[in-house]
Amino acid sequence: VDGPVRQRSLWQHNLALVLGHVGAATPTSRAEVAAATGLTRATVSSLVEDLLGAGLVTEVEPAPRTGAGRPATGLVLNPGGPAGLGLEINVDFLAAAVVDLTGAVRHHVVHRVDQRGRPPERVLADVARMAAEAVDGVDLTVAAARLAVPGLVNGDGLVRVAPNLGWRDVDVPGPLAAAPRWPALPVSVDNEANLGALGELAAAPTPPSFLYVSGEVGIGAGVVLDGALFRGAHGWSGEIGHVTVAPDGPLCRCGARGCLEQYAGQEAIMRAAGIRADPMLSADVAVARIADLAAASDPGVLNALRAAGAALGIAAAGVVNVLDVDTVVLGGSFAALADWLGSQVERELRERVLTADWSPISVRASALGAAATVVGAAGAVVRDLRAAPASWVNALR
Amino acid sequence: VDGPVRQRSLWQHNLALVLGHVGAATPTSRAEVAAATGLTRATVSSLVEDLLGAGLVTEVEPAPRTGAGRPATGLVLNPGGPAGLGLEINVDFLAAAVVDLTGAVRHHVVHRVDQRGRPPERVLADVARMAAEAVDGVDLTVAAARLAVPGLVNGDGLVRVAPNLGWRDVDVPGPLAAAPRWPALPVSVDNEANLGALGELAAAPTPPSFLYVSGEVGIGAGVVLDGALFRGAHGWSGEIGHVTVAPDGPLCRCGARGCLEQYAGQEAIMRAAGIRADPMLSADVAVARIADLAAASDPGVLNALRAAGAALGIAAAGVVNVLDVDTVVLGGSFAALADWLGSQVERELRERVLTADWSPISVRASALGAAATVVGAAGAVVRDLRAAPASWVNALR
Repeated sequence: VDGPVRQRSLWQHNLALVLGHVGAATPTSRAEVAAATGLTRATVSSLVEDLLGAGLVTEVEPAPRTGAGRPATGLVLNPGGPAGLGLEINVDFLAAAVVDLTGAVRHHVVHRVDQRGRPPERVLADVARMAAEAVDGVDLTVAAARLAVPGLVNGDGLVRVAPNLGWRDVDVPGPLAAAPRWPALPVSVDNEANLGALGELAAAPTPPSFLYVSGEVGIGAGVVLDGALFRGAHGWSGEIGHVTVAPDGPLCRCGARGCLEQYAGQEAIMRAAGIRADPMLSADVAVARIADLAAASDPGVLNALRAAGAALGIAAAGVVNVLDVDTVVLGGSFAALADWLGSQVERELRERVLTADWSPISVRASALGAAATVVGAAGAVVRDLRAAPASWVNALR
Repeated sequence: VDGPVRQRSLWQHNLALVLGHVGAATPTSRAEVAAATGLTRATVSSLVEDLLGAGLVTEVEPAPRTGAGRPATGLVLNPGGPAGLGLEINVDFLAAAVVDLTGAVRHHVVHRVDQRGRPPERVLADVARMAAEAVDGVDLTVAAARLAVPGLVNGDGLVRVAPNLGWRDVDVPGPLAAAPRWPALPVSVDNEANLGALGELAAAPTPPSFLYVSGEVGIGAGVVLDGALFRGAHGWSGEIGHVTVAPDGPLCRCGARGCLEQYAGQEAIMRAAGIRADPMLSADVAVARIADLAAASDPGVLNALRAAGAALGIAAAGVVNVLDVDTVVLGGSFAALADWLGSQVERELRERVLTADWSPISVRASALGAAATVVGAAGAVVRDLRAAPASWVNALR
């Protein structure tokens, strides 16, 4: 109970309700929406007019019917309606994606350039250029942008720290807005694993609650509870990379001992596998090399992945014991290594989760793999639009 | 968006809204409720009539006013309105409590008898008798009962396992309903740490999200997120006692190695302190003895508490890293030992939580101490009633 329900919020609520039904079962008809929602036909018709006028819904030819009566006009989400722009800054690449209102990916570009040590304003100028190219490259109105960074982000878009980029207290929205090519969109900034989790939620059939663990140079997590991302008190949830695996383990960059990143981060896996770190080798090439060696049964690599999977399983088991989520999704570079990591993670979960005897925990690779974050970022814009269409409808009036 | 808002649910929503305002600022007036909620005075008056008729709200004499105009009649939650019955089965005690609609504790009884090895139906017959005495002992209508058990509970009240009681797959509502003295109340069953967390939420000023860790013979947790208990996929959240502290640590009853219970459970503390386990010694007496020895600076006990606090801090740090909750509440027997455990827990959080540099994590003892669970159980009934008063109002019509 958070406010009175009066006429205005009633319209907002029911507008979202109708759009939700159109999105869930397309094509549908006004009559079917009325039956499913319990709203009167007149109310549904009026709300559908609002949605048609704002370009959120479109009409399609009815399918031929064998029964009696005139077939109803079908309603679908408008693939030409407002779209979302996703942007991603990661340690060794930048990415942009556009997702349309139906959730389809309409644009996806990755630039593989190491971002370590580059001044943030240079990085953000490149991001602004990629955003402009994405907006120009699709025949859609882009409603807003969401930018993923591998670090701790405040609600106002200040990046408190992105350790593997070397960023500390970097303002993002200001420099973006000032960049010459920036396409003047509202932008919000979020953690990359959070957006990867949202990508997974949109792309794959998932249970309402799951733990998404993203391996990049660092390790992050997105915690999805009851169908929504759980952000925590400051928006800093998901720091699974710094969960203690062994209290007296190796010293981590963060100052603590035995953090998960020291066992299952990319550098730790390379080190354990005896592969020399090569600054010229981008992370995705390094991951592909690890996967190739594992596929060729290289004993050193297999041992390294076993150890990483066990550590990942110990950390995940702690989360599952406390939250009772029944699915762990391996994302980022862990998705490419899931064939080797998965069984170890499952083994630790089976042994360490108290309730595993009653209900097994499912472990699987992300459906979107490395694209989860940037597609999830774009999809998050669309998700927000579909959940609260009233502001878009009002903005066009 | 989970359903259409129509007249009926509008009434339910606004009824809860008005009751919420009466509960939040008492005494208040119809005019103040109208101003705070944005509802019309006529709507508020009609809703207040419904609440008065059902005994949820009562009128009080207005305070003398210095300004002009007739002072408004005050509205308060009715202390004589429907109440909640809390019941608790724990390893070495049974407890019952009644909480009235305002949240005041009106009855609280604890029977210190070891329950280990007793047949569940005997335990439940005792609980039924305590319930009857509680209902008879207060001059209130008890609306429903909530029963706490130290174990994994299904939604239908089946206790899957309560390891320290030795229960497995024990049906609770059936035998309770069949017990001769049971006062024929609707009853639901929940985990003790979950209800302790709800007790804390109701009794003390807490942030919207916190981790409540309850030490008894076992260790459980209640995870409160955005003001609500998070139960997980099966209602089995909060098993922090089985979070791994050290992967190769001592073998736990659950079959895994290095679980938190093996470092900070009561038996582990006693063992580390060199105090011989005495089956005649009830847990609360044992805890009091540990606290006395710690207060007298017994070095063995201080070392044992330091080790327990460190383990508790390592497990709590994992939860805080993943969920970004900023408060850890020490409940159950940990409340009585908080003077010694707290600083160690804080130290590990400071070292192991990535974001601790930006925002410190607060650690404190439960406001209700050992009574948190049974008072929380009774309060949970009242909380549900206050959040959704429509069914109570309708039942009386």
